[in-house]
Amino acid sequence: MSTRTPVAGLHEHVGSTVSIAGWVHRRRVLKSVSFLVIRDRTGTAQAVFATPPDVTEETVVRLTGRVVTSPYGVELREPTLEVLSEAVKRPPFDLYRPTVPATLPVILDNAAAALRHPLLRKRFELAAASVAAFRRALDTRGFTEIHTPKIVSTATESGANVFQLDYFGRPAYLAQSPQFYKQAMVGVFERVYEVGPVFRAEPHDTARHLAQYTSLDAELGFITDHRDVMAVLRDVIAEMATAAGPDAPSVPAEIPSLDFAAAQELLAHHTDEDPRGEPDLAPAHERWLCNWAAREHGSEFLFVTGYPMAKRPFYTHPAPTDPTKSNSFDLLFRGLELVTGGQRRHRYADYLTALGDTADQYNLDAFAYGMPPHGGFAIGLERWVAQVLDVPNIRSTTLFPRDLHRLTP
Amino acid sequence: MSTRTPVAGLHEHVGSTVSIAGWVHRRRVLKSVSFLVIRDRTGTAQAVFATPPDVTEETVVRLTGRVVTSPYGVELREPTLEVLSEAVKRPPFDLYRPTVPATLPVILDNAAAALRHPLLRKRFELAAASVAAFRRALDTRGFTEIHTPKIVSTATESGANVFQLDYFGRPAYLAQSPQFYKQAMVGVFERVYEVGPVFRAEPHDTARHLAQYTSLDAELGFITDHRDVMAVLRDVIAEMATAAGPDAPSVPAEIPSLDFAAAQELLAHHTDEDPRGEPDLAPAHERWLCNWAAREHGSEFLFVTGYPMAKRPFYTHPAPTDPTKSNSFDLLFRGLELVTGGQRRHRYADYLTALGDTADQYNLDAFAYGMPPHGGFAIGLERWVAQVLDVPNIRSTTLFPRDLHRLTP
Repeated sequence: MSTRTPVAGLHEHVGSTVSIAGWVHRRRVLKSVSFLVIRDRTGTAQAVFATPPDVTEETVVRLTGRVVTSPYGVELREPTLEVLSEAVKRPPFDLYRPTVPATLPVILDNAAAALRHPLLRKRFELAAASVAAFRRALDTRGFTEIHTPKIVSTATESGANVFQLDYFGRPAYLAQSPQFYKQAMVGVFERVYEVGPVFRAEPHDTARHLAQYTSLDAELGFITDHRDVMAVLRDVIAEMATAAGPDAPSVPAEIPSLDFAAAQELLAHHTDEDPRGEPDLAPAHERWLCNWAAREHGSEFLFVTGYPMAKRPFYTHPAPTDPTKSNSFDLLFRGLELVTGGQRRHRYADYLTALGDTADQYNLDAFAYGMPPHGGFAIGLERWVAQVLDVPNIRSTTLFPRDLHRLTP
Repeated sequence: MSTRTPVAGLHEHVGSTVSIAGWVHRRRVLKSVSFLVIRDRTGTAQAVFATPPDVTEETVVRLTGRVVTSPYGVELREPTLEVLSEAVKRPPFDLYRPTVPATLPVILDNAAAALRHPLLRKRFELAAASVAAFRRALDTRGFTEIHTPKIVSTATESGANVFQLDYFGRPAYLAQSPQFYKQAMVGVFERVYEVGPVFRAEPHDTARHLAQYTSLDAELGFITDHRDVMAVLRDVIAEMATAAGPDAPSVPAEIPSLDFAAAQELLAHHTDEDPRGEPDLAPAHERWLCNWAAREHGSEFLFVTGYPMAKRPFYTHPAPTDPTKSNSFDLLFRGLELVTGGQRRHRYADYLTALGDTADQYNLDAFAYGMPPHGGFAIGLERWVAQVLDVPNIRSTTLFPRDLHRLTP
């Protein structure tokens, strides 16, 4: 690599001759002078030419010239220009516009070009920073990172919404979550996490569902109950929020928490609906409760705990005082369920009872060998970024989304 | 969580009463005294009892008692014992033995129990440390982490060895590598990496192949040629090696490098075989060359560069001086190909020429919009750990391997 100055560092070289390299972000030809705005991963910088350079936007160039100060910042004056790679197609919209003048399908169909827009790229920089923060928070708390199979013999979460594949002539499935594997690995490492793809054959075409998303999974042993999991989650979310920089939501030292039944009471008394008796919260209820938490507790985050067992997966640990309720929680953020988690069953016999005749479809071995009380959670990365940046569709926070209709690019 | 002292920290509490929690690693009943060895994620510690405690090995317990010094280190004397979770099955072998008295199939079939053996667990702690080092090396060099689709419409590497699935009624495939996506994202972020599963329907049942493995992928733009990629890879491998601690292989400041043709000459002159004219190196050749590098350069690592284009994928950039040769490399480590990489084609027209009639099966858009000269590499995580620890089968460095015959646990 020949020496290259990042454009964000040009101001350190005023008066010197340097080389920069990047994309022609914008080309402007005026009567007596022409400009190229060059974009690299650190930002943009301007170069000034007497004669209009013969390059199209998005062509990759190297410029070598003197750094001078101008009323608009530092710029390169009359640099020599070398084309490293020519753009032979125009992007679907002007990448230099301050906002993105394109619809979601246009962006997704042309992701390789569209994601170059600084506003769109920024979403994925936030995603990367968030994942790094997730891992950092757990690394410092003694968690071990694991990698588990994505091809499995049985659907984990439920029989529905699972992709089937041909595995050397046998049927197999894409893992809907690393649930069983992360639980089994609590028996080995006590505390584990995994960042990886999970797959749901979602037949619903909504702004909140994808066929593949990135799940930030954690599981920890030697807990008393789900509240120990919530405490770790609070710290993880706080670290992820800090990584969001100026966009960071504020995470209270203790996130307010509401029992499911109490949440239903609130809704019954303060809204036109009476959800009491229903086994789950509707999206509108989640939005109302988040507004309530903001109003009453000044928090954009709200835990709802104690969901009915009827609506939680079989591995959920029941509440010790009422077996129809569960030691589970959802974390709501800005009106949406962001995280789901809870204490899991840890006794072999409890799994046999809960699963009955279907127990032999599952790999329950880990629980037979002595498994500590444990629990965990899963954060949807794309949903987190969408909520932080107030983006209405999680396809906008996925590089190349997969859904009912979309398998390319 | 009630207060719990990690067993590795017991020596800081001599004379005090503390609680520890973990698995009964070993139970020994002598005539006048009994011992439990307790294992937690930090190590093992001994507790001494006058009356034999009625617990089986692998049962999860909490012990509370006084820490005393003994000729064998610190131990808990006459603690109270609380069973947190009973083991109802015996592990397939004694987990307290200093070596692992079990065959590979027994270990793999009983992973949830077997991986609790400290020697087996250690492999995955090394894997986690290696991945953290991979990311740290690239984070500090301005790389951005990405997450790409694992369900794709076209096989990336070749039509063979690809898993097919039913994608909402359409055929789709599991990604054999993030190759195209990471290249496309060079156009957005310049430098990217991804840690994720890749899938190969390997019909061969060898010690080196898996149907799913963890690929450490990196790709970077604005290179001169493959040697810039090799320089980054060298630094990444050095950081990963350091993370291996006492097992760390030594990575030379400059890894010796041999042109493919020169490697064949060496083999022709110094072995009984004459591989000249063949398009690739056989495994035995790779082993011989590694021995040569160790002898001549004192290095366990060896780059082989300039492989014939005929044996490299179509996206490989040809050598500028000889279009039958490629700007590619393999990194050999202790007799085995550990990393493959190189410079990629970056011009749209070059892809059209290389792919001919099949070009429209690929998503070549990224190259049309201006792509800098770039290249990258992929490290197989399980292979890395196996080579560092001198484990002969990569199934031994995979938590739950998937192969021709194995789809569970």
